[in-house]
Amino acid sequence: MADDRTEAVRAALLAEVGAGAVVVDPDVIDGYRTDRATAVVPGLPVALVRASATAEVQATLRVATRFGVPVVPRGLGTGLSGGATAIDGSIVLSTERMRALSIEPDAMVAVVGPGLRNAEVKAAAAEHGLWYPPDPSSFEICSIGGNLATNAGGLCCVKYGVTTDYVLGLEVVLADGRAVRLGGRTIKDVAGYDLKRLFVGSEGTLGVITEATLRLRPAPPPASTVVATFGSVVDAGRAVGRIVTEVRPAALELMDRAALAAVERVQRMGLDTDVAALLLARTDGAPSEAEIVAAACAAAGAGYVARTDDPDEGELLMGARRMAIPCVERLGTVLIEDVGVPVPRIPELLAAVERIAAEHDTAIPVIGHAGDGNFHPLVTYDAADPDATARAAAAFDAVMAAALALGGTVTGEHGVGVLKARHLAEQLGPDVLDLTRRIKAALDPDGILNPGKWV
Amino acid sequence: MADDRTEAVRAALLAEVGAGAVVVDPDVIDGYRTDRATAVVPGLPVALVRASATAEVQATLRVATRFGVPVVPRGLGTGLSGGATAIDGSIVLSTERMRALSIEPDAMVAVVGPGLRNAEVKAAAAEHGLWYPPDPSSFEICSIGGNLATNAGGLCCVKYGVTTDYVLGLEVVLADGRAVRLGGRTIKDVAGYDLKRLFVGSEGTLGVITEATLRLRPAPPPASTVVATFGSVVDAGRAVGRIVTEVRPAALELMDRAALAAVERVQRMGLDTDVAALLLARTDGAPSEAEIVAAACAAAGAGYVARTDDPDEGELLMGARRMAIPCVERLGTVLIEDVGVPVPRIPELLAAVERIAAEHDTAIPVIGHAGDGNFHPLVTYDAADPDATARAAAAFDAVMAAALALGGTVTGEHGVGVLKARHLAEQLGPDVLDLTRRIKAALDPDGILNPGKWV
Repeated sequence: MADDRTEAVRAALLAEVGAGAVVVDPDVIDGYRTDRATAVVPGLPVALVRASATAEVQATLRVATRFGVPVVPRGLGTGLSGGATAIDGSIVLSTERMRALSIEPDAMVAVVGPGLRNAEVKAAAAEHGLWYPPDPSSFEICSIGGNLATNAGGLCCVKYGVTTDYVLGLEVVLADGRAVRLGGRTIKDVAGYDLKRLFVGSEGTLGVITEATLRLRPAPPPASTVVATFGSVVDAGRAVGRIVTEVRPAALELMDRAALAAVERVQRMGLDTDVAALLLARTDGAPSEAEIVAAACAAAGAGYVARTDDPDEGELLMGARRMAIPCVERLGTVLIEDVGVPVPRIPELLAAVERIAAEHDTAIPVIGHAGDGNFHPLVTYDAADPDATARAAAAFDAVMAAALALGGTVTGEHGVGVLKARHLAEQLGPDVLDLTRRIKAALDPDGILNPGKWV
Repeated sequence: MADDRTEAVRAALLAEVGAGAVVVDPDVIDGYRTDRATAVVPGLPVALVRASATAEVQATLRVATRFGVPVVPRGLGTGLSGGATAIDGSIVLSTERMRALSIEPDAMVAVVGPGLRNAEVKAAAAEHGLWYPPDPSSFEICSIGGNLATNAGGLCCVKYGVTTDYVLGLEVVLADGRAVRLGGRTIKDVAGYDLKRLFVGSEGTLGVITEATLRLRPAPPPASTVVATFGSVVDAGRAVGRIVTEVRPAALELMDRAALAAVERVQRMGLDTDVAALLLARTDGAPSEAEIVAAACAAAGAGYVARTDDPDEGELLMGARRMAIPCVERLGTVLIEDVGVPVPRIPELLAAVERIAAEHDTAIPVIGHAGDGNFHPLVTYDAADPDATARAAAAFDAVMAAALALGGTVTGEHGVGVLKARHLAEQLGPDVLDLTRRIKAALDPDGILNPGKWV
């Protein structure tokens, strides 16, 4: 099937990157064509490169530049927006084998390869009594490279910040194959433009991150956990607004009735599935913080408020929250929203989602990092039913439009990928899109890096 | 004196920006030619624009683009690196009159004009029980616009982060006069490139920031203050390394003997000027943190360790630290270093500064944000003595070279400006400089924004 050009690209990769890294077997390649945005139809790549070293990434990009072939970088394929979906005729460049790891406890940094899982970095830091905070719910299976590419968030970022806040230095391979080092290992550094933060969150469109120097923190203090239930999601949203103006919770999560029921169906936790919404808060500052959170929930109309200082019990509850997306995915195909709004607009967003679900006759369980105003309405449907699929697509669009109308964003932490590309243009407007394209053209003049997605 | 071109630029500014904003009187302009990097010789601008509104900034940049005239944006002129030093034939564009201020307590944001002083934003937030953390020592006199342009740090950033960590949204006027809005008011937002963080810290070389939406926090918890004295700066450096791996202090400052003596000379605080170095730490987390800090100081060989929970006493000590630069400036002309190194290299940096001071027969009192590894060796000399001036310049270069040799940076928080431009090239290397120039060319193709400094 392969035409002459495909053969030439493959031959160049084999010669210049090496047979140990280059795969042309379609069965193997097939496992590298999608991420977890399963609704996106992937293209057919001409080759897969599983790079083990920066030099192999450089060689791959030199070949791609020479032939004008698109490159789709990917980590462990757990992305939710289609950022790693393969493009027709592309080289898929996996960094899963780049697993170097060194912890420097005195400097409080981890120097990591992009192929490591987030959980591996956390565990390695913990061996030295240190902590790598960013904690996407998928932390046990997602890669640090993917976390960097999407500027991943998580549960603790309401207090401790997102991935970009932990990046001191990067090694990046540019489209032309040059490797550059950005930043370093000093904590404060204003020497030149903040280029490393331009690459973080750029979803493989500006370069390929081959190493990161990540800032670590002392182990966090023990946390208290507060659980509160509400008769309406709007009341729960109001409680969030009260809490964050008074204390800085270390996590502040929301699950609505449908999300609770989905978790309870898979793993019985004893969660009250009669309530409209549940808030889960953690505090790790002054002992009074948990009381302030509990009082704020009560004042906002919570039906039931409980607090535990037991770490296992707290972890069990947070674990239930983290399981919510996989549990809902057992109920049907899921289009995962990732909208964000200013905290005072949370009640309006949650009311809008309820309305959209009813209007489009589509189930939309809601979970979210409520303290940040970042929500994941889970648009759930039967993909075998064309009518349900169409209704789900319309509901998905409607939720993003609602977030934008509330001064929000179409993606708080998952990235734009393919799924949110159309709404991105609406969010940014023509002038910012023009700036975006000028940056892209300056760094990837031939447009070979993950083209045709959102830039 | 003015030639035809100068007259044409002035006429266009008067016609298009308006007589209320445009100044051609050389005596008035003279007050806008320098910042606090007094060793930098300023150029002679053709006009000063004191803009009151975004539209005036836009009109100024349109005129500048049309005539190809450089524009030097400035805030309140408290910069320490010459970033706001006037260029020959330029338009100096002051944002001091852009003083809009609105606090939205529910959204926990301040929407501010660049001309406000940092202290004014803090005070306005405090009226609502909220807090704007970034606290450069000059917070009472420096502008938010300048803080944004340099990505200013301060004392509390060791725990609470620097200016860029508080920027949710920006309005920026581009070189061609277009105004764009970047980011917004959601806390997490990964929709597109992190453009706002590219403008923060770009020192007026990519655009002019005309409005910022800043994130506020709940008021900080009460702080304890720990003071410790050391017989050698190297021991003090070792104490810092111990402290930061165990707790997260809310400030961790160092002053050496000469800095202490300079403060004591101006305002008697009862500081012990016999010791080699003093560490000042604040903690605002669990009550045990202050004890952990005190124990770490004792273990590193502190001679005297004391703790106070009294807020006034703590504030008095922090005030002494903030006064150090003005106090040293009474002793002579000062070249203010702003080097940063990884925390474990602090003892080596401090030893190197002692050696450089001796070798160059130049006084170099040292103060610094020790917890971040960010130090301000204050190269102090008699500017009337050419030999002393030459020795000081050599010492200034030697300190930056020492920081780079330790894997550090030539500027942690003050910016590159003119003073650090030469060493920046050495720090970044040719490939990163090339990336920097490509970004600059993409956003300012005619090169009118603060040209000829570090880009």
